Amino acid sequence: MDAKTEEQRHFFDRLSAAVRRCRNPVLVGLDPRAEQLPAGLAPSVPATRADWAAAYARFCTLVIDVVAPLVPAVKPQAACFEQLGARGMQALAEVIAYARRRGLLVVLDGKRNDIGSTATAYADGFLGPASAWGADAMTVSPYLGDDSLRPFVDVAQARGCGVFVLVKTSNPGGGQFQDLVAEGLPLYRHVGRHVERLAVETVGHAGYGAVGAVVGATYPEQLAELRGEMPHAWFLVPGFGSQGGTARDVAGAFDPAGLGAVINNSRGIIFAHARPEFAERFGAARWQEAVEAATREMIEQLRASTTVAKF
Amino acid sequence: MDAKTEEQRHFFDRLSAAVRRCRNPVLVGLDPRAEQLPAGLAPSVPATRADWAAAYARFCTLVIDVVAPLVPAVKPQAACFEQLGARGMQALAEVIAYARRRGLLVVLDGKRNDIGSTATAYADGFLGPASAWGADAMTVSPYLGDDSLRPFVDVAQARGCGVFVLVKTSNPGGGQFQDLVAEGLPLYRHVGRHVERLAVETVGHAGYGAVGAVVGATYPEQLAELRGEMPHAWFLVPGFGSQGGTARDVAGAFDPAGLGAVINNSRGIIFAHARPEFAERFGAARWQEAVEAATREMIEQLRASTTVAKF
Repeated sequence: MDAKTEEQRHFFDRLSAAVRRCRNPVLVGLDPRAEQLPAGLAPSVPATRADWAAAYARFCTLVIDVVAPLVPAVKPQAACFEQLGARGMQALAEVIAYARRRGLLVVLDGKRNDIGSTATAYADGFLGPASAWGADAMTVSPYLGDDSLRPFVDVAQARGCGVFVLVKTSNPGGGQFQDLVAEGLPLYRHVGRHVERLAVETVGHAGYGAVGAVVGATYPEQLAELRGEMPHAWFLVPGFGSQGGTARDVAGAFDPAGLGAVINNSRGIIFAHARPEFAERFGAARWQEAVEAATREMIEQLRASTTVAKF
Repeated sequence: MDAKTEEQRHFFDRLSAAVRRCRNPVLVGLDPRAEQLPAGLAPSVPATRADWAAAYARFCTLVIDVVAPLVPAVKPQAACFEQLGARGMQALAEVIAYARRRGLLVVLDGKRNDIGSTATAYADGFLGPASAWGADAMTVSPYLGDDSLRPFVDVAQARGCGVFVLVKTSNPGGGQFQDLVAEGLPLYRHVGRHVERLAVETVGHAGYGAVGAVVGATYPEQLAELRGEMPHAWFLVPGFGSQGGTARDVAGAFDPAGLGAVINNSRGIIFAHARPEFAERFGAARWQEAVEAATREMIEQLRASTTVAKF
């Protein structure tokens, strides 16, 4: 029997188990936006930042109530909460804690990084149940190089947590620097190779290291290419849905067992009530049913088009 | 007469005026660390995160009391406060507000970024007196490319605020990706050229754009080279003092008028009481005098070795 507690186990072993249990790799993005909240959840005007922060926390917990029985993990977007100041950050802490209580793994999307000692402060503050924020994993930017990434990997490994390094981002302008070719390889592949090396050093039972990669659904060829080059790095794949990525686009992200990737959808799920096909069906008051329908739709699309159907 | 209020004026015009008024370009880094707080300021054990957050706020306000009459600006490090969770972020908000009340410009060092709409959320939350955090400027990471940088530049320009994009960082491993050569130029120079283009588009009276660059003191040759290539981008230069950079190393960062750069020192100033030369002279109880002595020492070093002596 494994003497380690659930929290100390390797993050990607826990994520593999959660994906198998849920029979899908959907990562629901929690990106609350004032102008898109369902009508009944917005505070009455004039509203303070504290009112909005409370509304964000309530909205996210209600989304979590819907998706917790369906998906393995959620990804709160730090910027949305940070936009509201310290009260927003208090709401973020509440949302993370609630998601964990509901059995979801939590990937905090903050794309943080800094030089070594400061990177350690970020990692220490965000990763693990005893940390200030209590996330299971977090996203990190690679521009500062290995000595800025290493502290995240060290803390993640020690605490059974995970790190996702930006490799190939989903935005239209992502290629401006990421596609520059140096020594015969685009920058994103240099970063990808480095992430793979860090992953090999920290590999767990499921065959994945403590460090994974963010690779956008909007670049399906590069996604498949990187899957081949980075067999030990779990992928966090943004860009599905609102950004244009489809189940077919992300098929290359998975390993032959149907593991190795979580597929993120934020607006397309949490604001499903505003999508034409769901708005008519449910109306504003039944927005949680729209969230459930959108989540189930995405799960079915992935099962139909990818190797995750093998579970 | 300029009809714009002080806050709406171009950030780098305000920074130029502040550097001239103070006759130095010192940017004091506010990086509180539990293990380095002066003895009397640490909370009694056992201390909660809220206790530590209160201690950080008190320490930083006492540092600000010392440096406000001497230097143009301070740079709070988000990670140090974020490490303490939401209460730490409340302390960060208090420190920013206090620094502004004391007449200092505030550069929030968070090295944030994300895809477009999320980048807008960060910029909206951090920049300007009416924002949630109220910073005058912030640091930003370039890996996601132009469509991730543009929202910061747009918000900064509209609000009389500034953005500093990471170009050549001060850490030993910074070159791993930043020095990769593509199309005959290292990555950091590609990023630098892009920042210069954005600066030209947003130039103010002092000749600098709303977007500047982070360029480390630990690479003096590249610093001088980039100064020549980026005449419209103000530089934020970290790496002075504890990281090894000297006044001679940063000489190349300034324009012929002695403007165009602020030089950051964090630990060497705020924890001056722990430096051997000051520890003996002041002792732990007089740590604020050590902060003042270290600040004045850095100012004199810069005046002796660089063009800022011309003021």
